[in-house]
Amino acid sequence: MHFALISKILGLLLVVFSFTMMPPVAVAFYYGDGSEGPFLTSFSISMLLGLMLWLPFFRQRAELQARDGFLVVTLFWSVLGVIGALPMLISDAVPVGFTDAVFESVSGLTTTGATILSGIDELPKSMLFYRQQLQWLGGMGVIVLAVAILPMLGIGGMQLYKAEIPGPMKEAKLTPRIAETAKALWYVYLAITVVCALAYWAAGMSLFDAICHSFSTISTGGFSTHDASMAYWDKAAIDWVGVIFMLIGGMNFALHFAAWRGRSLLTYVQDPEFRFFMGLMLMYIALVGIGLMFFHIHDRPDQAARHAAFQVASFGTGTGLTSTNAAAWPGYIPYLLIFTSFIGGCAGSTAAGMKVVRAALIARHSLRELRRLIYPNGIFALRFGKHVVNDRVLQAVWGFVGVYITIAVIFTLLFTVTGMDLTTAVSAVAASMNNLGVGIGQVGGGFANITPEAKWMMTLLMLLGRLEIFTFLVLFTPLFWKQ
Amino acid sequence: MHFALISKILGLLLVVFSFTMMPPVAVAFYYGDGSEGPFLTSFSISMLLGLMLWLPFFRQRAELQARDGFLVVTLFWSVLGVIGALPMLISDAVPVGFTDAVFESVSGLTTTGATILSGIDELPKSMLFYRQQLQWLGGMGVIVLAVAILPMLGIGGMQLYKAEIPGPMKEAKLTPRIAETAKALWYVYLAITVVCALAYWAAGMSLFDAICHSFSTISTGGFSTHDASMAYWDKAAIDWVGVIFMLIGGMNFALHFAAWRGRSLLTYVQDPEFRFFMGLMLMYIALVGIGLMFFHIHDRPDQAARHAAFQVASFGTGTGLTSTNAAAWPGYIPYLLIFTSFIGGCAGSTAAGMKVVRAALIARHSLRELRRLIYPNGIFALRFGKHVVNDRVLQAVWGFVGVYITIAVIFTLLFTVTGMDLTTAVSAVAASMNNLGVGIGQVGGGFANITPEAKWMMTLLMLLGRLEIFTFLVLFTPLFWKQ
Ligand SMILES: [K+]
Ligand SMILES: [K+]
Repeated sequence: MHFALISKILGLLLVVFSFTMMPPVAVAFYYGDGSEGPFLTSFSISMLLGLMLWLPFFRQRAELQARDGFLVVTLFWSVLGVIGALPMLISDAVPVGFTDAVFESVSGLTTTGATILSGIDELPKSMLFYRQQLQWLGGMGVIVLAVAILPMLGIGGMQLYKAEIPGPMKEAKLTPRIAETAKALWYVYLAITVVCALAYWAAGMSLFDAICHSFSTISTGGFSTHDASMAYWDKAAIDWVGVIFMLIGGMNFALHFAAWRGRSLLTYVQDPEFRFFMGLMLMYIALVGIGLMFFHIHDRPDQAARHAAFQVASFGTGTGLTSTNAAAWPGYIPYLLIFTSFIGGCAGSTAAGMKVVRAALIARHSLRELRRLIYPNGIFALRFGKHVVNDRVLQAVWGFVGVYITIAVIFTLLFTVTGMDLTTAVSAVAASMNNLGVGIGQVGGGFANITPEAKWMMTLLMLLGRLEIFTFLVLFTPLFWKQ
Repeated sequence: MHFALISKILGLLLVVFSFTMMPPVAVAFYYGDGSEGPFLTSFSISMLLGLMLWLPFFRQRAELQARDGFLVVTLFWSVLGVIGALPMLISDAVPVGFTDAVFESVSGLTTTGATILSGIDELPKSMLFYRQQLQWLGGMGVIVLAVAILPMLGIGGMQLYKAEIPGPMKEAKLTPRIAETAKALWYVYLAITVVCALAYWAAGMSLFDAICHSFSTISTGGFSTHDASMAYWDKAAIDWVGVIFMLIGGMNFALHFAAWRGRSLLTYVQDPEFRFFMGLMLMYIALVGIGLMFFHIHDRPDQAARHAAFQVASFGTGTGLTSTNAAAWPGYIPYLLIFTSFIGGCAGSTAAGMKVVRAALIARHSLRELRRLIYPNGIFALRFGKHVVNDRVLQAVWGFVGVYITIAVIFTLLFTVTGMDLTTAVSAVAASMNNLGVGIGQVGGGFANITPEAKWMMTLLMLLGRLEIFTFLVLFTPLFWKQ
């Protein structure tokens, strides 16, 4: 383990992160909401801490190895999670303690979007902007993690995507390659965000709200500047903009990059995960839309389609924005929506969950097992798009899904120990581990009233989900720390 | 497909099954409860139907092939499920329609033990005996299925046990081998049943109840002759007899056979699945027992231990007998108990669920994936006991578990469509698919009040669970019917 190097990298990250306190300061001055203080203090703390970690090792020239990657990535999200909590902890306008502040900050950075705040509409504009920006930055981090880092660490079968990482340095060392990939992807991310903000603005949001919601839409984060989320406007045009950009956020950004570079929408259609993803979404929308008509929640087909599409896109990508009180919808619909978040979005997207590619591989593997029962000596290759998936990748996928489900079940039981009923517990697991952010049952109105133990469990699950479990778990094996 | 041969076998089965109507007739005469009529009618129908299927083909000498096995096994449970419903359908003492009668019969034969009846204590003795006997016969069928047939069909990785099938004819053809294996195992099954009945009798049950409950304990079936189940006696000695024999029913009967032949208890200790099973059970008992003390349900440690052990043995092996109203226990305990039934008992036992051996293999596989992240080029063999588990078996296990969980999730959602809440829906899936038989939530008091749609879904799930899913699913692939 290169602790000196890791300290240097972490220090550098904190220095860079400290500058993200500046846009909220600008917002505070612009609106004169008097909240620049907490951000300036947080800037100083983050900068100082960063320099303390960076300066002693700034001559360090060692190369980062794959194994260091697990530690750096885990530290990145957990340390920034705590530092990101500072403005809320310091500000008098946000009456939160340490537990709640870290919950909210980690919820932002992991693009979860679960909130312990209420009366959001009354918060200072700068603080609202800061929360949204946390999600946008988190989304940036996620994309680099998902597209460049996880495939190289080989987590959960993501080595499948090793050859498809954009950027010119296919077989280079870790650091320059990640930097190259990051740059290419962030341009795409930034461009889509700008388009999204303009679309929201054109559809009727204020410019401030349009920018803020573009941040939490593209990052599939789900924070809003209003307690009512998107129901604040209750406008079809705004909802449909949301649907489109949530779905875009739930797709592989390497695919966006490839489509943009090739100037061709065919790139999407040729991608097997994209097709599976859209197929799932359309199926969910049909199931929910039919239910809304059947139970007479919406009798007009356009209304049923709009609210079905919005909630499916929101839950399916784990965004967690809501256009209506979906938790109160009847019967199976809220359960189905919660379920969709377990599969989640595509690999390489800002969405979480187990990922569409893994669900698709598992579905094909199961069909192959059926065939093998009939022809025990037959050879059946497992294809995904043009590629034949090798057994090693498949085993990693199964390992991932097995551990994911096991942790989901264990934490569901643990949440019931804190006094939740089963619906609420399942919902809390989905909200945190799938980085979904919204709940049903007793947490349909937010997470302010759950026990502190439950809040810390959710914070842990947000990190676990975001780090694709294994990045985090591997740090707890003795083998990892052996030289 | 050898349809003539399949018809012959099915006919023979029905002829044999028709004679199982005779013991209830004897019970009816002994107690003079006047219920011999429905059993004699059912005997005639089953016998006639059997002869109609058998006689045209009785000269048929073809050998049964592995592929025919899927169809025979599925027909065995579904046809006997319908024929077994006849006495209840005919009898005036049991006021049930077709749906309820088939539900109850399939529930018996699959050793599920879910019931739509109430006022059981008032039923004719012969009818009570018949229900218990259905479970005992089902248990017999299950053992042959699990020990002799599934390993040969290669379902869900059970080829792992191919070498361990008892009987002298290791590599022989299907029919004589199954017959040999069946004979060996049934002696063991019968012997354990006799010991169980004597133990219940000695512990304080009437001889009739002792025999009846030995039937539903060894088969992990869970039907009782009293509405209150084992709480009718509320006696520590009876409960502990139940604990021991439910656990014995949840173990591999090939292991019982080996231990009996070798006259050594060491046989058990050397079996890795047995150790994993007992480890799980002790962990569950500790978790439940501590909860009972903590929530002051039972303040005396011996009481807490007794009720924790009974409910864990009952839910963990999917028996479903209850010594107290466990559905009303607080907080996490009922959820934990429901969860234990998903793993279920050992392969080759009368218990259902995904099976301990599969859970153990998945746990080991996941640990191996963690190691592989740290040493991507390392070779890590997956061991289970003395054996190295090959990738083919592992893939079959994963395929099984993946399909099992998928079906569980889909049916949970389908049950919520029929109006159940989430807890009830999960409980209905566990009760039927894991052949558990008891429920919590709205079905804590039995399954009489669920919709007919839900009853048929449960009936289907009982069969699916009992047939290890794939035996049934494979019949719905076009590939299976291709010559
Ligand atoms: K989210
Ligand atoms: K049972």
